[in-house]
Amino acid sequence: MDFEHSAKAREYIERVRRFMADEIEPMESEYHRRMGELDNPWVVLPEIEELKAKAREQGLWNMFLPEPEYGPGLSNLEYAPVAELSGRSAIAPEIFNCNAPDTGNMEVLVKYGDEAQQERWLKPLLAGEIRSGFAMTEPDVASSDATNMEATCELDGDEVVLNGRKWWTTNAGHPNCEVFIFMGVTDPEAGRHSRHSMVLVPVDAPGVRIERMLTSMGHLDAPSGHGEVVFDQVRVPRENIIAGPGRGFEIAQGRLGPGRIHHCMRLIGAAEMALERMCERSLSREAFGKPLADLGGNRERIAEARVAIEQARLLTLKAAWMIDEKGVKAAMSEISQIKVVAPRVALEVIDMAMQMHGGGGLSQDYPLAAAWAGARSLRLADGPDEVHRALIAKMELARYKNP
Amino acid sequence: MDFEHSAKAREYIERVRRFMADEIEPMESEYHRRMGELDNPWVVLPEIEELKAKAREQGLWNMFLPEPEYGPGLSNLEYAPVAELSGRSAIAPEIFNCNAPDTGNMEVLVKYGDEAQQERWLKPLLAGEIRSGFAMTEPDVASSDATNMEATCELDGDEVVLNGRKWWTTNAGHPNCEVFIFMGVTDPEAGRHSRHSMVLVPVDAPGVRIERMLTSMGHLDAPSGHGEVVFDQVRVPRENIIAGPGRGFEIAQGRLGPGRIHHCMRLIGAAEMALERMCERSLSREAFGKPLADLGGNRERIAEARVAIEQARLLTLKAAWMIDEKGVKAAMSEISQIKVVAPRVALEVIDMAMQMHGGGGLSQDYPLAAAWAGARSLRLADGPDEVHRALIAKMELARYKNP
Amino acid sequence: MDFEHSAKAREYIERVRRFMADEIEPMESEYHRRMGELDNPWVVLPEIEELKAKAREQGLWNMFLPEPEYGPGLSNLEYAPVAELSGRSAIAPEIFNCNAPDTGNMEVLVKYGDEAQQERWLKPLLAGEIRSGFAMTEPDVASSDATNMEATCELDGDEVVLNGRKWWTTNAGHPNCEVFIFMGVTDPEAGRHSRHSMVLVPVDAPGVRIERMLTSMGHLDAPSGHGEVVFDQVRVPRENIIAGPGRGFEIAQGRLGPGRIHHCMRLIGAAEMALERMCERSLSREAFGKPLADLGGNRERIAEARVAIEQARLLTLKAAWMIDEKGVKAAMSEISQIKVVAPRVALEVIDMAMQMHGGGGLSQDYPLAAAWAGARSLRLADGPDEVHRALIAKMELARYKNP
Amino acid sequence: MDFEHSAKAREYIERVRRFMADEIEPMESEYHRRMGELDNPWVVLPEIEELKAKAREQGLWNMFLPEPEYGPGLSNLEYAPVAELSGRSAIAPEIFNCNAPDTGNMEVLVKYGDEAQQERWLKPLLAGEIRSGFAMTEPDVASSDATNMEATCELDGDEVVLNGRKWWTTNAGHPNCEVFIFMGVTDPEAGRHSRHSMVLVPVDAPGVRIERMLTSMGHLDAPSGHGEVVFDQVRVPRENIIAGPGRGFEIAQGRLGPGRIHHCMRLIGAAEMALERMCERSLSREAFGKPLADLGGNRERIAEARVAIEQARLLTLKAAWMIDEKGVKAAMSEISQIKVVAPRVALEVIDMAMQMHGGGGLSQDYPLAAAWAGARSLRLADGPDEVHRALIAKMELARYKNP
Repeated sequence: MDFEHSAKAREYIERVRRFMADEIEPMESEYHRRMGELDNPWVVLPEIEELKAKAREQGLWNMFLPEPEYGPGLSNLEYAPVAELSGRSAIAPEIFNCNAPDTGNMEVLVKYGDEAQQERWLKPLLAGEIRSGFAMTEPDVASSDATNMEATCELDGDEVVLNGRKWWTTNAGHPNCEVFIFMGVTDPEAGRHSRHSMVLVPVDAPGVRIERMLTSMGHLDAPSGHGEVVFDQVRVPRENIIAGPGRGFEIAQGRLGPGRIHHCMRLIGAAEMALERMCERSLSREAFGKPLADLGGNRERIAEARVAIEQARLLTLKAAWMIDEKGVKAAMSEISQIKVVAPRVALEVIDMAMQMHGGGGLSQDYPLAAAWAGARSLRLADGPDEVHRALIAKMELARYKNP
Repeated sequence: MDFEHSAKAREYIERVRRFMADEIEPMESEYHRRMGELDNPWVVLPEIEELKAKAREQGLWNMFLPEPEYGPGLSNLEYAPVAELSGRSAIAPEIFNCNAPDTGNMEVLVKYGDEAQQERWLKPLLAGEIRSGFAMTEPDVASSDATNMEATCELDGDEVVLNGRKWWTTNAGHPNCEVFIFMGVTDPEAGRHSRHSMVLVPVDAPGVRIERMLTSMGHLDAPSGHGEVVFDQVRVPRENIIAGPGRGFEIAQGRLGPGRIHHCMRLIGAAEMALERMCERSLSREAFGKPLADLGGNRERIAEARVAIEQARLLTLKAAWMIDEKGVKAAMSEISQIKVVAPRVALEVIDMAMQMHGGGGLSQDYPLAAAWAGARSLRLADGPDEVHRALIAKMELARYKNP
Repeated sequence: MDFEHSAKAREYIERVRRFMADEIEPMESEYHRRMGELDNPWVVLPEIEELKAKAREQGLWNMFLPEPEYGPGLSNLEYAPVAELSGRSAIAPEIFNCNAPDTGNMEVLVKYGDEAQQERWLKPLLAGEIRSGFAMTEPDVASSDATNMEATCELDGDEVVLNGRKWWTTNAGHPNCEVFIFMGVTDPEAGRHSRHSMVLVPVDAPGVRIERMLTSMGHLDAPSGHGEVVFDQVRVPRENIIAGPGRGFEIAQGRLGPGRIHHCMRLIGAAEMALERMCERSLSREAFGKPLADLGGNRERIAEARVAIEQARLLTLKAAWMIDEKGVKAAMSEISQIKVVAPRVALEVIDMAMQMHGGGGLSQDYPLAAAWAGARSLRLADGPDEVHRALIAKMELARYKNP
Repeated sequence: MDFEHSAKAREYIERVRRFMADEIEPMESEYHRRMGELDNPWVVLPEIEELKAKAREQGLWNMFLPEPEYGPGLSNLEYAPVAELSGRSAIAPEIFNCNAPDTGNMEVLVKYGDEAQQERWLKPLLAGEIRSGFAMTEPDVASSDATNMEATCELDGDEVVLNGRKWWTTNAGHPNCEVFIFMGVTDPEAGRHSRHSMVLVPVDAPGVRIERMLTSMGHLDAPSGHGEVVFDQVRVPRENIIAGPGRGFEIAQGRLGPGRIHHCMRLIGAAEMALERMCERSLSREAFGKPLADLGGNRERIAEARVAIEQARLLTLKAAWMIDEKGVKAAMSEISQIKVVAPRVALEVIDMAMQMHGGGGLSQDYPLAAAWAGARSLRLADGPDEVHRALIAKMELARYKNP
């Protein structure tokens, strides 16, 4: 395992760090204040588009894609510290066109999309002109088990007919959201892993109905948001199926590998941001005649936060390195490991930082509460902790079973 | 320690349980849905007023006050199971006129208010006609240390002049909120515990400015809300001072004793509600061919939740019994103990329940996310965990010190 | 739930406290030092016999038995604080003739023994003249599941023939140990709960072989010790079967109810002793210019210890009260709850106390390491935590299942 | 950070792995059984000397020293996986002449010893002919704060006179132990960091008295053992002072850097061994009709163990890499971090493994209880967790302080 930053990685780390310090950090809290005051928050404020243009101009764009034709072509290991930096901010990922779920959707189209699909959807996504959603999770079943899925996409001549109810479709509220990747059952008789298909569905296709926006731990996460979306006899051309019928499960697996650790990288950044704020607060506030840092167990908590972050970062790097060097399949245990660890560490550190901030820590004045809510959702999104632990144990025990 | 329910307690438990089952539970999720869709949520929906009237009629009203002239006159120990039941719901406390901070404010007026103050403010509070706020915490200092307080209330002839910035003033958003209890420094030269005063301030007094409403872990908690309130040269008559100048600290201490454990009782109820939902969900959802209850460590988590709740409930009862039998002062360690334990247990159990519900658990569809946010705020409100632990340790070590 | 100490309980608490302070505490550390220097520790030092005589004389004897014909006749609730006191010391339980496994064995003989069995075994046990072992757990199977048991006791005319290998038979090393209660399968074809029998076996019966003494976390626990015992074609008269063939499982269940919480009561005492020592040490040692109490998170740890002990004690009392008032069967969840909680709390508090003592805390100079080892074994003895959690969850979920 | 194993590291990993599999593992449990039966365990059994000879012959010797003149000359990063392997066994470190405290003492002599000291003491230590102790910790003061040290070494002409009481001097029971490195105050008036000296003291010097052997969580750890040693007017030649008077603190700091992480490497190995045994046991034992692996939360625990070990290993590697690349001083936070993490992880995983083994897990039949005790002592040895956390926090906060 060689985690040494390459020259390219060092360059991008430095440029992203500077961009964040010069362009994003100075405007972020004011941005959130303004968003918080909007009657209709489902809009993109002009400063976001300006920063996107600037980032794109500087080549700080699509950095998540390892394929060099779409951006700098960073490996997962190289991208890790860059994504970590972007994770310090709630808006940076979008500004760098590196935000979920668009990143995962772009990966799908890069790897599995045909030329027409890429032309129509990948191109504007890469350009940051449109946004996209991933319609997989369903409200009525435990979606951690894909075989529970109830939505259907039936082939009907040249068309495919979609029916079902999905939720937690992130970006469903975004004014620029133009397409969903819908997952449903094409052939219930087929094998467990070949009965699903993924289909590209324009948001304005007849029968697509965004019923409402969900809150996640109280947060709307506007303007992206998380939608509950009904697909009611939606008809799209058969060529909207990605990679052909029956390949949905395979694509989902591929999609979630790097995507999962991108989340983790960003969570490390969020935790690091929280620790910084915790330290600053502990030195600047006083109670009972001392800075908070010198009261009770506060220093021990700071130490524990540092220790937890260091370990989580190293495990993220290992998982990234494994994906780069051995492939997603060989890295499955490591991916699940970091998927369990990173949200937990982020939640712990952010929680400590909130506590050190008193009531303010829970309010909209600091990015902590929103970061906490985001980290909490990642104990469920892309597979709940419990499923990942089951997978880790399965792979661990497999070493001992006789042939 | 005799925790046996008295006949009176048993009667009220049964009546409150029935009221909740018959009147509140059937309408609560619809109520929250409607509130969530309002453009202006700072209103009291008519169903709330109807239920308040019904509860009052039935004598399920002001049950938090031990003094028999204001209600059933339950002791703290008798009130504990009643408050626990009300804690299962986000709206029940208000319907029973037993919701913070009005409860604490009513206690203050009962114990320290003069006749005129009681006539003007206590009476309508007891009737549930108005709401009130408690303006103590300040944004610019660590308010866990009262000596940090910067707000002032200067005596000026027949008047007192208030200046300062307060936040986390709950009820500041409520349309019926008519009065704040403001705490400030009257005499900075006086002893650490006699320099503050508490003053009754009409919400519409000139110079009172509710600058904004805070979110608490993403939640506005409308229609009560948590306000940031500026007091800018606010003049009120000197007779608005409660119990006379310099007694603010003393009143705050008295106010927080029972109030703290009322919170804890409700938290036990919230935890119990979460455990019920966790169990139901674990039996009704399936994944990988089994009900969730039979997957991985889920049963062990259910057991841990039960164990944690039982212990927290018993500790709450002990603290209540101590207050009743020995007084708030003798119960100080126990009060701090349960103040540390109850939010922690509630947070753990609710978090497990959310996890068992998948994405839905984080959404507005279940009461879990809001209950979690409420419990989280109670690791800070009425004193952060760290301060309570310091107090517990101080009292523990005091047993060993030589005279 | 009325946990108020009765007058009788208060009297025994006071007398036991005084006996421990006057007689046991002054000699205990010297006793352990002497035992530690013996080449053969499988002896009873004379000071133990002297103290036993004194305790018996004062009526501080057999206090664990609720039946008034054998001692003071304390209920479980009354015995709890007495047992807690005895748990502060490693030798007090024996001195009061209240030590496991003799207590459980005496209970079995009281409830299920016939007159001859009581005359021969119960009487000298009640007199503290002999010791006894309980031969149930087996090395080759998971003994948490009784149906795994491999030992057999076959009926053969007037005799019963025992075969099997048992371990963790406590008291097997004690010079006064004269009898084992052996559990084995009489009829493998009978129902799951009626195939076992319990048989009284003299230690010197031909075919009984104590193969070796086990260490428990490094401790021999002499002179009682934990033996691995082989039963090789051991023949005893049929009348040695307790309560008749096939009732072993039933007796085991009955035996373990109060026995389990006696352990828990003592563990609370051990935790309380550890907290006392932690506090004293934190005030008397200095580092970096301050008493340890004022360094880092030490005070927060003291507070957490207090909070954990209080809750565990209350839960123990509840379980005791449930057994007294509703019977062992109705108290099953509570018994399992406290069986999970008490060892955990004791382990945590003792571990903190050890840490506060530096290296000495791990050594034989303080009772902490031995107390820790004892508490650790109770996460397995009388059923591992995992089995108790499974039971708690089963009973919790049973409330939700439809008929 | 490049954690890639070098060719040399890979070679030694493979050779050590084979040596352990072929030579040590087959004899280890029998070795412990025999040791357990000895009346006098303060002996070196012949099989140990044989294996030492074999290991030395094969060059698997003194692998902890980075200096190539003494062995293979592995860097800390290269040594980490080798030490990890040796940590799977209680006797392997001695067999490879890589056991504490001899390793630290050899490092001191390599770096600070003069030619005569090296000739007399280092040479036989390197040859594995003698053993040595480190006499630093004192029973009467908190030794985590070196300024508390009470032992003295006064210069007296050509001699130095040692007085003091030390404990936890590991190897004091070893029949081949010939020398102690004694630390004491030479000049109490000197600066905090230059008042101590380290002195080489033959075990048989007049005035040296090994008063007794301590148990560590019940374990004697024979034949090395941990002694309480009195130095009573012990006179040794002045040239026995290492590096001259006043340099004791400096040497201690240097000694503890790599030494601390050697412990951590071995702890990772112990944890890995425990996880293996936990997995094997979970697959081979059945209860309630299923292998333990399929009961309750056991798989989740296995997953958590894997996750914890992976992270601790990576952090150990980072600390080793930091020492190699930037030096001990620059690696101070990382060293303290892993010193906090590695014992904790080892304790958790070993504890889970013990629990999965039932009663046997606590006994002498498995290496788990002894490994647990060893790991527990490392939460105190070389600095208690609390001191390391304080150091980590200090370095973390130092980043924020203004100059």
